[in-house]
Amino acid sequence: MGEGEVKLFRTWSSAYGLRITWALKLKGIQYENIDEDLSNKSPLLLMYNPIHKKIPVLLHNGKAIAESAVILEYIDETWKKNPILPQDPYERAMARFIAKFGDDKCTAALWRVFTTQGKEQEEAISTSMECLKTLEEWLKGKKYFNGDSFGYADIILGWIANLVRVVEEILEMKIIDKERFPLLFAWIEDLSNLPAIKDSWPPHDKLVSKYRAIHDSLIGGVE
Amino acid sequence: MGEGEVKLFRTWSSAYGLRITWALKLKGIQYENIDEDLSNKSPLLLMYNPIHKKIPVLLHNGKAIAESAVILEYIDETWKKNPILPQDPYERAMARFIAKFGDDKCTAALWRVFTTQGKEQEEAISTSMECLKTLEEWLKGKKYFNGDSFGYADIILGWIANLVRVVEEILEMKIIDKERFPLLFAWIEDLSNLPAIKDSWPPHDKLVSKYRAIHDSLIGGVE
Repeated sequence: MGEGEVKLFRTWSSAYGLRITWALKLKGIQYENIDEDLSNKSPLLLMYNPIHKKIPVLLHNGKAIAESAVILEYIDETWKKNPILPQDPYERAMARFIAKFGDDKCTAALWRVFTTQGKEQEEAISTSMECLKTLEEWLKGKKYFNGDSFGYADIILGWIANLVRVVEEILEMKIIDKERFPLLFAWIEDLSNLPAIKDSWPPHDKLVSKYRAIHDSLIGGVE
Repeated sequence: MGEGEVKLFRTWSSAYGLRITWALKLKGIQYENIDEDLSNKSPLLLMYNPIHKKIPVLLHNGKAIAESAVILEYIDETWKKNPILPQDPYERAMARFIAKFGDDKCTAALWRVFTTQGKEQEEAISTSMECLKTLEEWLKGKKYFNGDSFGYADIILGWIANLVRVVEEILEMKIIDKERFPLLFAWIEDLSNLPAIKDSWPPHDKLVSKYRAIHDSLIGGVE
């Protein structure tokens, strides 16, 4: 396919890394997956992302690209088949706007639900519900955030689909229920059944163990 | 030019709004400028950006686009002349990476220099100097962050050029001096002399008055 040498530095569980995995699979790009241990980062990762020292990093023919949203745009511009972004400039702007809303507003709110208790958690739940209501509105009349086909906005928001069931299990709390958010609920179902995503979805129980440990260390294991 | 009806909602001083002004001028797009009063937002602004209720908003043939980075991509995709982003995918990724670094890291650090005192300010100065050192490195061997010609990364970082002299005057402190940051210093000079930018640069004294009032209200006017 003339796609050159492609390597992806990520971790098995990072939702940011999974964005790139999904995009590469969607495009049908052959690549080498390199799993990083963030408690002992490889010299290569530090060399390829000296600014942030974070995954994911995409290495293409020796050139390193960091920041998952930037990498997604690069992948879509480099390999044209199976477009990730819509073709129309206004639709592209909407996809980027929705993605940015998810990253700027919803991530922080949902993370606070997971990492706080009491009044602070109640406030975080309220903010999260507002975020999810906005997302639910955007799904009206379409199957994916990106439009009729899965794409950029869905990939960026995919962490919700990936982690919300894990968070719900640990907190013993419904966050995205079928009655309140029927479109988001269906979107999560659709997403998790897409071949490109299904094949790389981390094992649920392993995620629950990982996030339970994080939760216990932050909340102190007492509730 | 067949560019349709273009309206820009902004304020006279917002660096985010100026990004769009600069891009439209660079492209030679005719547009109507609508100055918003953020203490009394217009019903149109609230209608066109119901999510964030913020400027800038670009209205193109009745379709509204918000978030300055998203608007810049829209402008570049809609009007091809005088490209804002480089053509090569890797160069585009670098421009977006640099812009994101500026927005995520440098803005917060420099704002904290302006809005804190004592030990907190010292830490913010130290973080800001690290940010500026990184920016200085990126300018090595090129005139603009975007490469040889002014573009996306420069537009996003333009608030530094726009506001650093204002902040320096109010704080009576050198932040970007010629000896320590010769390339950034020259970049600010070059930027402020570009016709597209020169014509829309807010009056320095008016900016100083505005930011002095903000500074006094936050720091209490006692130092």
